[in-house]
Amino acid sequence: MDIPAPTGIPTYDDVQAAHERIAPHVHRTPILTSSYLDRHTGASLFFKCENFQKAGAFKARGASNAVFGLDDKKAVRGVATHSSGNHALSLSYAAGKRGIPVTVVMPRTAPEAKKDAVRGYGGKIVECEPSTSSREAVFAEVVAETGAEFVHPYNDPRVIAGQATCSKEIVEELGELDAVIAPIGGGGMVSGCCLTLSNIAPKTKIYAAEPKNADDAYRSFKAGHIIADDAPDTVADGLKVPLKDLTWQFVSNHVEDILLATEEEIVEAMRLIWQRMKIVIEPSSTVPLATILKNKELFAGKRVGVIITGGNVDLGKLPWAKT
Amino acid sequence: MDIPAPTGIPTYDDVQAAHERIAPHVHRTPILTSSYLDRHTGASLFFKCENFQKAGAFKARGASNAVFGLDDKKAVRGVATHSSGNHALSLSYAAGKRGIPVTVVMPRTAPEAKKDAVRGYGGKIVECEPSTSSREAVFAEVVAETGAEFVHPYNDPRVIAGQATCSKEIVEELGELDAVIAPIGGGGMVSGCCLTLSNIAPKTKIYAAEPKNADDAYRSFKAGHIIADDAPDTVADGLKVPLKDLTWQFVSNHVEDILLATEEEIVEAMRLIWQRMKIVIEPSSTVPLATILKNKELFAGKRVGVIITGGNVDLGKLPWAKT
Repeated sequence: MDIPAPTGIPTYDDVQAAHERIAPHVHRTPILTSSYLDRHTGASLFFKCENFQKAGAFKARGASNAVFGLDDKKAVRGVATHSSGNHALSLSYAAGKRGIPVTVVMPRTAPEAKKDAVRGYGGKIVECEPSTSSREAVFAEVVAETGAEFVHPYNDPRVIAGQATCSKEIVEELGELDAVIAPIGGGGMVSGCCLTLSNIAPKTKIYAAEPKNADDAYRSFKAGHIIADDAPDTVADGLKVPLKDLTWQFVSNHVEDILLATEEEIVEAMRLIWQRMKIVIEPSSTVPLATILKNKELFAGKRVGVIITGGNVDLGKLPWAKT
Repeated sequence: MDIPAPTGIPTYDDVQAAHERIAPHVHRTPILTSSYLDRHTGASLFFKCENFQKAGAFKARGASNAVFGLDDKKAVRGVATHSSGNHALSLSYAAGKRGIPVTVVMPRTAPEAKKDAVRGYGGKIVECEPSTSSREAVFAEVVAETGAEFVHPYNDPRVIAGQATCSKEIVEELGELDAVIAPIGGGGMVSGCCLTLSNIAPKTKIYAAEPKNADDAYRSFKAGHIIADDAPDTVADGLKVPLKDLTWQFVSNHVEDILLATEEEIVEAMRLIWQRMKIVIEPSSTVPLATILKNKELFAGKRVGVIITGGNVDLGKLPWAKT
């Protein structure tokens, strides 16, 4: 059986509380621009650089909000999650910062580098087989043994409220933009954008960008209900997970459109950003620029916030090394 | 015969004039920190990120100062230089910004990517054979034909005054540091640091960092006179050129010490910065961190400015791909 996450739609009050709560623990990340990419796209692009965030991704916001929002009685039993990506790192970072235990259930097949990174932040890893049934069984055991608080990677109101602080900073710095675009996997960051922007910048159009090879959110959006794929394959490895009930609420109600990019377009956009902006970002973060480049007419002449979600990439295995 | 560059030691008044002159054309680059690297070194490191500079390197400062300092009569005949690196790009950028012609003499064997980049900024390339005699002969012809103003990559008071604006920004933002360290090739950036810091932050110790495989500045410094190597081989390809009379004046009078790093140490430091700081920087820029890591006792407990000189790197040929 799967452990239920807390439910309930977070409000903008929750976002404001989250922002105060996490301020001592995460970076207020810089917003960069590129005159080359502006000329190249015809838009004014504002890149919110969560690759410079603690633990290398925006996930530190939601994880910190969940961890530092626990009362002492719950906190002492620690937190737990299942993830082989940035959420595992971020939850380990936040728990380490608070000084409470953190257990991460990871498939035994996950890259050693990721396991090392989790351990580097003080996380304890419990391995499962690389299947949903094994993951759920092992995770249930961990929670039963430790009494740890489950912090879901995205389908959790505390996590969504935390991610929502990212677009709050964009509005505080730049005012109301014409559009904001973010990559979509499980929908945590996009839900955070919906939550913030629908409240304080309601004219800003919200776009989600998704790999064509993992287009379950796109198909869900068009169909009007959640469609989950089994095992999509994309270089944008942070975007393979499906929408869940909480994130679906936000995405279905507030997103203007979901735009798709091919693997080649994602890698090309990644190389362009590294080359021109001199920043290290992971493939998932380059999907928005890839979709802007193929939908220039949508964004031309507009002021567009582009969320660079993270910078955790295996430097020894860059995608253009294959091509 | 080689074309003589302007002579005369620049003063701090020249630096202040340069800063005003170039302000509309170059970035005031950000200063980044890394809590990981601070823990790892025991020092407080402040990375001045010239990889985010126009044309991807600090060289845009000196080139812009030279180009925008020309009177109209000289400017109309354009500027010229010989370089296959960041100075060629930067001079092309600055001349393009002013709308005057620029000719760059480059060996025909220089990478096509670099030639494309120079052309992308509007520079005209004249090819020579990859030898000093051919370069000098071809360059003399170019100057005779065009009447263009020669802007030397580093042995030019206008260029040194321009580079000196970088450490001026560091002092303006952080006050007087314990030390500043920059890579050394021809010595333009280090001379700029000497010029600024000896005037406005005289207690700051100035260190230069050099590849062991191209240690001509180190040997010059120890010998007390300029020693030039013929063709040093190092991954830090911006640091192969020798000191000249103007830069020697600054280096020999104001530098505390020159520290060396091996090729492996340079590549390891590069990977560490990319991985932890999420910024794309070229191998030449990583030599300072490499030397800090092997001389921790010199920097422990100190506030240290580290100049990240540039971010122009061939993403298809990263040095760790070989290892």
